[in-house]
Amino acid sequence: MKKAVILLSGGIDSSTTFAIARSEGYECYALTFDYGQRHYRELESARRVADALDARRHLVIGFDLREIGGSALTGELDVPKQDAGDATRSSIPVTYVPARNTIFLSFALSWAEVLGAGDIFIGANAVDYSGYPDCRPEYLKAFEEMANLATRVSVEGTTRFRVLAPLLHMTKGEIIRRGAELGFDYALTWSCYDPTPEGRPCLRCDSCRFREKGFSEAGVEDPLLLGAAGETRP
Amino acid sequence: MKKAVILLSGGIDSSTTFAIARSEGYECYALTFDYGQRHYRELESARRVADALDARRHLVIGFDLREIGGSALTGELDVPKQDAGDATRSSIPVTYVPARNTIFLSFALSWAEVLGAGDIFIGANAVDYSGYPDCRPEYLKAFEEMANLATRVSVEGTTRFRVLAPLLHMTKGEIIRRGAELGFDYALTWSCYDPTPEGRPCLRCDSCRFREKGFSEAGVEDPLLLGAAGETRP
Repeated sequence: MKKAVILLSGGIDSSTTFAIARSEGYECYALTFDYGQRHYRELESARRVADALDARRHLVIGFDLREIGGSALTGELDVPKQDAGDATRSSIPVTYVPARNTIFLSFALSWAEVLGAGDIFIGANAVDYSGYPDCRPEYLKAFEEMANLATRVSVEGTTRFRVLAPLLHMTKGEIIRRGAELGFDYALTWSCYDPTPEGRPCLRCDSCRFREKGFSEAGVEDPLLLGAAGETRP
Repeated sequence: MKKAVILLSGGIDSSTTFAIARSEGYECYALTFDYGQRHYRELESARRVADALDARRHLVIGFDLREIGGSALTGELDVPKQDAGDATRSSIPVTYVPARNTIFLSFALSWAEVLGAGDIFIGANAVDYSGYPDCRPEYLKAFEEMANLATRVSVEGTTRFRVLAPLLHMTKGEIIRRGAELGFDYALTWSCYDPTPEGRPCLRCDSCRFREKGFSEAGVEDPLLLGAAGETRP
């Protein structure tokens, strides 16, 4: 059974990616990061998703990106509201976490090398996304190139690593339809960057708005809104 | 004053690299990792070196690579002894930590982006080294390419990142001579992968043997051997 490492945040994209990898017959090793994100409610979702999708193992690695800063998701800046969906804007939003996907993929690469897994799945999407540079196809290709020079494979000539992003060119609606076809329950997921004090999605940040757009396009009700609650990081 | 992030382990190579960056007029931000390494004595050396070389800031980021495993430096395997200097051997030694430099450089990239630093210094060496794939020039070049696609610069067209490895083609003896010329005190550094219970260098691991070779080639006594002591991780 071929093995894969799946980057799993607990949101819609990474969870759908995980469901797709499972449907393709991979033995899945889910990898989640507790990096000081404001919306650490997503960690609970990641655990539930890993459980529901039968992760062979679920590893949560902790480090504190608040020490580096530079993002509304880890710092003192406010998460902007009512800002999503404007794909033409030129500046990168303050919710961008500098080099986050590079850090995440680097740990995934390390684990994949130890496990003997050739494939790393990431839920990157370059359609309905916030314009983060590390979600674009040219970036993922460059990471893959680098990964194959970074590791034993480049010296010992064993399997090459692939970075697979099956959602890359899908709209949010297409993503949710795909997950629904696979029987995945989106009530398990979490998207909001800035939950209310009562632990509910704010419905106004980029991430909430993309989520809403997706369910609307897919013609499906968001099961999370029927009964979600979580906590903000104290 | 141009800024640089310096990867600093507390060993000879990263410390000499730091001294070189300082001599070139950089404002230096030193970055060290507490990743579950067996020889965590090096962290104390990193602090001393950062202090001696006037780091503008010294950041120590913690995460636990023992959860990923796959290396004698973080796992249960023994550190091999009397094995250094055989550059022709084809297999990568068990002290290789999978994708470690990729993880380290990724955090350095994140911090550099936040600081507005264009240059990242790493003490990689491809002459007197253990054959780790992530110390070779082609790897460093690929990381640099990826880094420039991963970050704001690729979208906003600001400064490009460079990964600088001034020691890449130097022998260990040349490295130590260079550091000595710059007035750097190697008594501050630590190399041993597997200190004795009394906290002294084992003198038999790869890292100790490269160190010994370097001081011997440079015709200098190793000041560390005159009075070193440290601790093994409990």
